[in-house]
Amino acid sequence: MTLEEKAAQLGSVNADRVVEDGEVDREAAEEWLEHGIGHLTRIGGEASLAPADAARVTNELQEILGETRLGVPAIPHEECLSGYMGPEATTFPQMLGMASTWNPDLLQEVTETIRGELEGIGTVHALSPVLDVARDLRWGRVEETFGEDPYLVAAMACAYVDGLQGEDRSDGITATLKHFVGHGSTDGGKNRSSLNVGRRELYETHLFPYEATISEANAESVMNAYHDIDGIPCASSEWLLTDVLRGEFGFDGTVVSDYYSVRHLETEHDTADTKVEAGVQALEAGIDVELPYTDYYGEYLVEAVENGDLAEETLDESVRRVLREKIRKGVFDDPEIDIDAAADAFHTEEAREVTGRAARQSMTLLKNEDDLLPLDVDSVAVVGPKADDKKELMGDYAFAAHYPEEEYESDAITPLEALESRDLDVVHEQGCTISGPSTDGFDAAADAAGEADVALAFVGARSAVDFSDVDAEKENKPSVPTSGEGCDMTHLGLPGVQEELVEHLAETDTPLVVVLVSGKPHAIEWMAESADVPAILQAWLPGDEGGPAIADVLFGEYNPGGRLPISLAKSVGQLPVYYNRKANTANKDYVYTDSDPVYPFGHGLSYTEMEYGDLSLSADNVAPLEPVTASVTVTNTGDRAGAEVVQLYTRAANPSQARPVQELTGFRRVELEPGESKRVSFELSPTQLAFHDESMTLTVEEGPYEVRIGRSAADIVATEDLAVTTSKAVPKTARTYFAESSVEDAE
Amino acid sequence: MTLEEKAAQLGSVNADRVVEDGEVDREAAEEWLEHGIGHLTRIGGEASLAPADAARVTNELQEILGETRLGVPAIPHEECLSGYMGPEATTFPQMLGMASTWNPDLLQEVTETIRGELEGIGTVHALSPVLDVARDLRWGRVEETFGEDPYLVAAMACAYVDGLQGEDRSDGITATLKHFVGHGSTDGGKNRSSLNVGRRELYETHLFPYEATISEANAESVMNAYHDIDGIPCASSEWLLTDVLRGEFGFDGTVVSDYYSVRHLETEHDTADTKVEAGVQALEAGIDVELPYTDYYGEYLVEAVENGDLAEETLDESVRRVLREKIRKGVFDDPEIDIDAAADAFHTEEAREVTGRAARQSMTLLKNEDDLLPLDVDSVAVVGPKADDKKELMGDYAFAAHYPEEEYESDAITPLEALESRDLDVVHEQGCTISGPSTDGFDAAADAAGEADVALAFVGARSAVDFSDVDAEKENKPSVPTSGEGCDMTHLGLPGVQEELVEHLAETDTPLVVVLVSGKPHAIEWMAESADVPAILQAWLPGDEGGPAIADVLFGEYNPGGRLPISLAKSVGQLPVYYNRKANTANKDYVYTDSDPVYPFGHGLSYTEMEYGDLSLSADNVAPLEPVTASVTVTNTGDRAGAEVVQLYTRAANPSQARPVQELTGFRRVELEPGESKRVSFELSPTQLAFHDESMTLTVEEGPYEVRIGRSAADIVATEDLAVTTSKAVPKTARTYFAESSVEDAE
Repeated sequence: MTLEEKAAQLGSVNADRVVEDGEVDREAAEEWLEHGIGHLTRIGGEASLAPADAARVTNELQEILGETRLGVPAIPHEECLSGYMGPEATTFPQMLGMASTWNPDLLQEVTETIRGELEGIGTVHALSPVLDVARDLRWGRVEETFGEDPYLVAAMACAYVDGLQGEDRSDGITATLKHFVGHGSTDGGKNRSSLNVGRRELYETHLFPYEATISEANAESVMNAYHDIDGIPCASSEWLLTDVLRGEFGFDGTVVSDYYSVRHLETEHDTADTKVEAGVQALEAGIDVELPYTDYYGEYLVEAVENGDLAEETLDESVRRVLREKIRKGVFDDPEIDIDAAADAFHTEEAREVTGRAARQSMTLLKNEDDLLPLDVDSVAVVGPKADDKKELMGDYAFAAHYPEEEYESDAITPLEALESRDLDVVHEQGCTISGPSTDGFDAAADAAGEADVALAFVGARSAVDFSDVDAEKENKPSVPTSGEGCDMTHLGLPGVQEELVEHLAETDTPLVVVLVSGKPHAIEWMAESADVPAILQAWLPGDEGGPAIADVLFGEYNPGGRLPISLAKSVGQLPVYYNRKANTANKDYVYTDSDPVYPFGHGLSYTEMEYGDLSLSADNVAPLEPVTASVTVTNTGDRAGAEVVQLYTRAANPSQARPVQELTGFRRVELEPGESKRVSFELSPTQLAFHDESMTLTVEEGPYEVRIGRSAADIVATEDLAVTTSKAVPKTARTYFAESSVEDAE
Repeated sequence: MTLEEKAAQLGSVNADRVVEDGEVDREAAEEWLEHGIGHLTRIGGEASLAPADAARVTNELQEILGETRLGVPAIPHEECLSGYMGPEATTFPQMLGMASTWNPDLLQEVTETIRGELEGIGTVHALSPVLDVARDLRWGRVEETFGEDPYLVAAMACAYVDGLQGEDRSDGITATLKHFVGHGSTDGGKNRSSLNVGRRELYETHLFPYEATISEANAESVMNAYHDIDGIPCASSEWLLTDVLRGEFGFDGTVVSDYYSVRHLETEHDTADTKVEAGVQALEAGIDVELPYTDYYGEYLVEAVENGDLAEETLDESVRRVLREKIRKGVFDDPEIDIDAAADAFHTEEAREVTGRAARQSMTLLKNEDDLLPLDVDSVAVVGPKADDKKELMGDYAFAAHYPEEEYESDAITPLEALESRDLDVVHEQGCTISGPSTDGFDAAADAAGEADVALAFVGARSAVDFSDVDAEKENKPSVPTSGEGCDMTHLGLPGVQEELVEHLAETDTPLVVVLVSGKPHAIEWMAESADVPAILQAWLPGDEGGPAIADVLFGEYNPGGRLPISLAKSVGQLPVYYNRKANTANKDYVYTDSDPVYPFGHGLSYTEMEYGDLSLSADNVAPLEPVTASVTVTNTGDRAGAEVVQLYTRAANPSQARPVQELTGFRRVELEPGESKRVSFELSPTQLAFHDESMTLTVEEGPYEVRIGRSAADIVATEDLAVTTSKAVPKTARTYFAESSVEDAE
């Protein structure tokens, strides 16, 4: 390979440079692809191509590559967080909603389904999942995460990867773990701002999901984060991208740059003075492929090698990684996609069933005074700006939300549509827009509520991805996005006048159900405390089947079993409120406010009652590498089938360091018929209790621990003492990331 | 010495155990002092003794110690942040106000004056100053700090120590640098919550003031902080208290525990299971003396040595340090205090003059539309709950604020009293209380405003130290403290209905001046932007002479020259807003808000105009240890004398890491008569530009830098390029902490 050909493998070209009006721009393509290319960036999604067109255009670009000297085909990659981010895709619940299911198996079904659609258009590499541990609710991307807890994030991430990649690396689609690392905890909750973190917290909170997912799910790609950590940009951190990722975690796939993050070394971090410097810094640190364009790699890497500023061996190593991925993914074998079959991969009944099931399982009932829900009424008033807009059911990386100006036929069913399809009198008054100031519709909304048996307020934030100037956006848009990438907020309330709308409805005599259709939580302390808001359902951004899922929960066809994957703060000034803080943080009050969340991590109500039997441990003393089984019986003592999420927490009672008040180390969602009992067992490894000692050696420490079973982090139903008999550094091979759970029938 | 006698030297006894109703409780004292004692804790302050009584009781306790086997006298220590925290003391402006003077020489005069009063009652060790770098405005103790910038904190801290300790260690009073380290940046802005920080940020932001003050001012004592850093409690961190503090910084004095922080190892951090364990952990880490009582040292250390859990040599080392301090401070020579002279040290004219000058220089004029100030009027309406309460002029560690229930005759003069002493019609209406809900007084206040030429609204927060249960406090107190230790807040607005009071006054036709009498800044974006609030004066907590100082500024007898030592956030959700963030943090917007402060660091207006001439550098290329002189001319082009604070900022233009957008590396306050010009020169050392490389070696990096002169961090008036010719690790002996400034007359 010539130097140019090698460098080309580390680059990419975005659809907008080679596709025009749905057709390949041959002249441009032949120029950009002259020496070959590493990745084709989002041919289907970026160019808004229907599946068959995406397949056809991709084929044509691969053909052009086939005509180059070496004929190496490209890796076509797409975004797919809550579904392929392109036309006609099935949209699933946004990930914070998926995390609320506490059901990794279901998430695996979701991503297997996403994989089916992506394979239809020939994608072999997808830029998901998000492993960021969400610690600041101001951050717009919180909705993309699996929440605040490293263990839950890791468990869901493994399932996501398993579904996308499949059993065998030659089979599925490369998953990309992002954003490496710590994007969920940046300064001020701002996207791409600095991360200030101690090394122990970095490993135990932010790196843990990566290590677990690489080890347990064999993830094939990682994407660097935009920010700097204590001054070192992730994009130029050899320590992170090579020493930790490859050296310590044994990662052997490709590292791809977050879009434009190589450029940012020159334009934002100022560590590079030229394109050559930026490219060399990123490549030497360990970024194999520049996305979404070859702007700082390509000719600049060639120049660097020629000038002696970059060792050719460094370039070669990344080229080998990219080619290895191409070989594994079979693009060499026959890159041609079956155009006729592409469309068949979409709009399947199976996908529809899976997204519907996912939406139902994500529904999280926060409050239900006097068992107002499930409803048994003849008429409802449907109010609020989130009741009847398909886009408003989608997360920021869903096609409809990502490109709100795009003409787009969505298959989604809105809550209003779902309710209107029932044998029910439905009056609809929007009341207000999402973020506009007008309260003109309030009276009509209240009148509608007054005439109905129950009022349903569908409220929440608009999700989008806002890379452009915010003020310009605001002027042009009827409703401003306040969630999603780039949409960070200084307050956590509902946007616009929606809180006032809810207050207005609460003043009527009609019982009120607030349905929060938002990707991330709002500060809803007053609603939680108000007797005039008897029921609150957190519906997240539920995707295509969101409307029916919500309606089924409201009317009891589906008994909600979702649990919060993130603590709900009382106000922005109370942040952070994540449950696994240390005691000296968790227990300190502010003058007018304590440090407790409105609703805790793990919280969620049901229409049935679950009772817990005693917790038993298979041993009360264990050696540091000896697992212990913790078992507890759960009985559905109510008269409806329902789900319970059994949560296992552990706590070090007398550690050598200040440690979290407790940490999630296992969970299992179980479905129980009325009267049914099940015995849930967790195989807990003491290595799960390990933490990094003063010399940063991961060590299981001798001493007393508590093993707890909780309905939520704040509702512990049983605690047992466990002692670890000696201290021991955890050998890499002996580390257990997850407590395997098993369920058997019980009396 | 017996083991008991040695252990006793590492302990302390609080006045409340040995003093009752102003008299020594001999029986108790003989018991507590049986084996001697390290420190006597706050005999004057805690027991509320008048100076002569404090001297007498201290003498008596030293006599009892003289009767013990060894007869080693104790170190009597007191609190003295803004003045001795005991009866009859002079109260100076709270420290954030002192920092606003940008006048270290003046602060040194202040602490020399404090020292005079403390020496009067025989104190030899004082628990000040606070070196915490304030990065979260929610934190109640922000008012105790010198603000957000490590350089300004360090410069003010050196002056504080120089004044208190004097030239010679045998002469003055031991100063205690606290809280070691990073208390100003803890999670959620809560006192004593965890600190999560990278090591580079720890050194460059939080440790810098300690290193500088130990090196340049020879500080004799350090107090550990309450919190943990990345899991390691400061109180048990040998790395911090010994390796860094003594090993790297060369500290050779005593480390004293923050009150109860040894106990917290058992009760909050859970790292100790017993008192013995807690005591041993703290002593082995490097805490020499337990304060305020011997509860975990003393007999528990004896037990630990006897059981082999503690090396006697470790104990001996700390005993030697305590005895060395006692020898240096001369307590062995003759501990007896002259009782008759004690009172003479108080209520001096000199002290009054110094606190008055300090108050005037701290006044920071934030806004002055249409030159409303200085006032030229015949009548004023004085409104607001901070206008006429002596306690409301005091910081949280002033006696009157610390013990608000105490009967106490203060010498302070309130703003109302100062205004009433002028030839002026003064109407006074309080309008509302500090934190109460009643708006009953609004109309009377507006009426008073309507009849006056100008309305003066004195608003702000109450400062106190609140260790007790907040809810109980709230029930018992008419106004709740929302600033000061333990009084952390989830929002930054004015307490109670004070903002509404200001809005109400703004609606009248009478011009309005808002005088903020608060220890730390509030979120005042709307006032800053409103045309109906033409003038805003940040008066901080100005101490005994606060009323006259404010009146002098309002009426132009004193031209304000204070500058903000901290950036004013628009809202709590915008935090952090400190100026020296990295570009990727400072330049990112929220959806509805940018990241700029309402008023920037360094901002402050004057009644005159200052013009800057060109900035010149003595060289544009320098070797890494070669200083460069930056000079700029300032001319008072207005018609009043006034002060200008010339601010020197530097920036690395192409560093190997993401660095702050700029950093303060020099400043000088100069006083200029009308028409006068002065040339201000800074000797900048390239070692001031150094930062820690990837291996954490402090290094001056080769490359381009910018040298800037600013009126504030956001108002840079001149910039010059400077190149450092080669990279070099900074030898400890060659490090320069401060740019020395000089001033000469100019044309």
